[in-house]
Amino acid sequence: MGTELLLGEVLNTNAQFLSRFCAHHGLDVYHHVTVGDNWERLSDALVRARRRADLVLISGGLGPTPDDITREVVADVWGCPLRADAKEMRVIEGFFRRRGVPMTENNRRQALLPQGAVSLPNPNGTAPGFYLEHDDAHVAALPGPPRELEPMVTASLGPLLKASDRLPASRLYSRDLLLAGIGESQVAERIADLLRDQDDPSIATYAGGGRIRIRLATRAKDEAEALASFRPVLDVLKSRLGAFIYGYDDETLPGAVGRLLKARGLTLGVAESCTGGGLAHWMTEIPGASDYFSGGLVTYSNASKIALLEVAPSTIERYGAVSIPVAKAMALGAAKRLNAEVSAAITGVAGPSGGTPEKPVGLVCFAFYGPWGLTSEDVQFNGSRALIRERSIIHTLMRLRQHLGEEQAG
Amino acid sequence: MGTELLLGEVLNTNAQFLSRFCAHHGLDVYHHVTVGDNWERLSDALVRARRRADLVLISGGLGPTPDDITREVVADVWGCPLRADAKEMRVIEGFFRRRGVPMTENNRRQALLPQGAVSLPNPNGTAPGFYLEHDDAHVAALPGPPRELEPMVTASLGPLLKASDRLPASRLYSRDLLLAGIGESQVAERIADLLRDQDDPSIATYAGGGRIRIRLATRAKDEAEALASFRPVLDVLKSRLGAFIYGYDDETLPGAVGRLLKARGLTLGVAESCTGGGLAHWMTEIPGASDYFSGGLVTYSNASKIALLEVAPSTIERYGAVSIPVAKAMALGAAKRLNAEVSAAITGVAGPSGGTPEKPVGLVCFAFYGPWGLTSEDVQFNGSRALIRERSIIHTLMRLRQHLGEEQAG
Repeated sequence: MGTELLLGEVLNTNAQFLSRFCAHHGLDVYHHVTVGDNWERLSDALVRARRRADLVLISGGLGPTPDDITREVVADVWGCPLRADAKEMRVIEGFFRRRGVPMTENNRRQALLPQGAVSLPNPNGTAPGFYLEHDDAHVAALPGPPRELEPMVTASLGPLLKASDRLPASRLYSRDLLLAGIGESQVAERIADLLRDQDDPSIATYAGGGRIRIRLATRAKDEAEALASFRPVLDVLKSRLGAFIYGYDDETLPGAVGRLLKARGLTLGVAESCTGGGLAHWMTEIPGASDYFSGGLVTYSNASKIALLEVAPSTIERYGAVSIPVAKAMALGAAKRLNAEVSAAITGVAGPSGGTPEKPVGLVCFAFYGPWGLTSEDVQFNGSRALIRERSIIHTLMRLRQHLGEEQAG
Repeated sequence: MGTELLLGEVLNTNAQFLSRFCAHHGLDVYHHVTVGDNWERLSDALVRARRRADLVLISGGLGPTPDDITREVVADVWGCPLRADAKEMRVIEGFFRRRGVPMTENNRRQALLPQGAVSLPNPNGTAPGFYLEHDDAHVAALPGPPRELEPMVTASLGPLLKASDRLPASRLYSRDLLLAGIGESQVAERIADLLRDQDDPSIATYAGGGRIRIRLATRAKDEAEALASFRPVLDVLKSRLGAFIYGYDDETLPGAVGRLLKARGLTLGVAESCTGGGLAHWMTEIPGASDYFSGGLVTYSNASKIALLEVAPSTIERYGAVSIPVAKAMALGAAKRLNAEVSAAITGVAGPSGGTPEKPVGLVCFAFYGPWGLTSEDVQFNGSRALIRERSIIHTLMRLRQHLGEEQAG
């Protein structure tokens, strides 16, 4: 794995996963180090890690090929010679017997563990991990593939660490506030004082995919203590940014809109031009969306706007396909054709070409129909084609959330 | 930046970007190291990096806050005291003058560079980077945010390195073969001999998002030499995996399907149930898709299948919404309603609930209509709701590609 990381072939998602795991358990992380499948460099990295850390987490190099040397180097650095683990040997032998494939010496090597180590079962691969408690530094060796490493950490390493003496009494708790429809720099301006002075809980913002995450984090002995620490800061954030907040922690924008539709017993139909089905795709990410999502019409051409949504040809001719009148006609057509009480329509210039001085790339027209009536607006977005499409979807969902949550049936 | 990485808040995309940059320029990367905003740990890491490397690349810690210490630590470790850079000072002063914001001492610090260093302009932020040629190890300091670092590396650092004496005469070239519709383990079985024995060009597989990338890489003095080295291996790969290959390098599956439609002068319309508009969204990722994509119907409910696609209620009643007869009716309805020569329809059980013993989660029915007639099939996929939806889209695109590329109008 190390070699692929050093070539830039793959992203080091294991470093992030293991860091979050440590933060969650109250362990401070001071170093990430990546080296290739090279005895000297790996040994050198582990000698230093053992010296400076209480716990060393290693991923990769447990496979069956001669390149995979983690097991041997750990045994050498920690001074605990390799021994065959009878249980793991049976697991590996069983695996090959069931497949009717001959087992090689290299496969046998996977059942070797440093003396005193306990094996970490790997239900998603052949290489078990191991965990070794040692006076100066505990060490865990984990497989490189994330789909093997992540379940092993959650199911086996976590409980072992909890049972050891290496976890602090307090750990890090966090609470995320999720925002959309506002830029990161605007958020930073509105809470500049907090970003500068707020110390515990700490506060940080992360932006990506048109959404912003404000994370509060604090070290506490239990959740109640953490929540008490978050509450006053959350109140300030809500008073300054309320209109842009769509949820907390793992909530999603389509999930929030779906809950509002369901609570009010309404169904949604959508008509999309430049977003090409993306809004419908997002809405149907949520299992059970059929309770409130009646369908979508992707009318990428003028002909399909006319045939499917009953937009009048004269409206398109007079105002152009990207216009408020066409967006309104699309929203009304979608509600009618999809037999929905609520509808949203998007038509815009996603680019990179097709813009004019009057209707530049990034101009997107929206219309929303529902108990509140028929509303519309146009927005000028910036960025690539993909970003303009994504921001148009987010804008639609934020507006639907407002209409559904704040305004009452008229 | 380092601190956020160590907490697992953000993924280290800079490590990947810089590694690819190095590989592309023939530079071997032996270590990635991440430390927080801490003088001792950063200094220690840089002392060791300077000793073992010809070139040290640093990202982060160039901002205006007291935490940002990269500039000072580099000056200290390389023994080159900081000096104000007149040009960068003017740039920063101009930035604050234009905004009418008072400039602080910390902002001024951003124009300090180690003696002998050249500044790397930052058009996307206030902190310039710098590059210092030094006998034992050249060093470049780059900003942490990827949207500042990436353009700086491409526009400034690359040309400076090319002009220096640090780049080898040969560099790494690669060629990616893109596959879909086959699992990674099946690929590994079909080319087990190559994966084991093939040395130069090297061969590696990467899987993700239902697609597989087989990468050939070799060190060569120019592209012609690299291509000559790839050709015999590519021929073997094509002979063993031809049916699953949809493109090379940066090609995309919707792009490949779009090219075939355009070349044959055909338009595509789609009808989607479980994928909820995702197929339409993928097809319209490509600028200019309106030349061949006529539209899509997201018929998530039975009512919309009947109203929009003219699926007979008796067909749904008799066979169920997830069935070959319904998929066929959807494809024919989409072609008719969207006035398209080619159509594809998807209806399936995306889960996580809604499965039955007869129609389990992951069962997806497809139909394809076009000059080849009307074809259909069902496939049992595994995985999460998101994965089942993604694999259904990929399956549809692969099948369209086959129909459009291999079969002639009947």
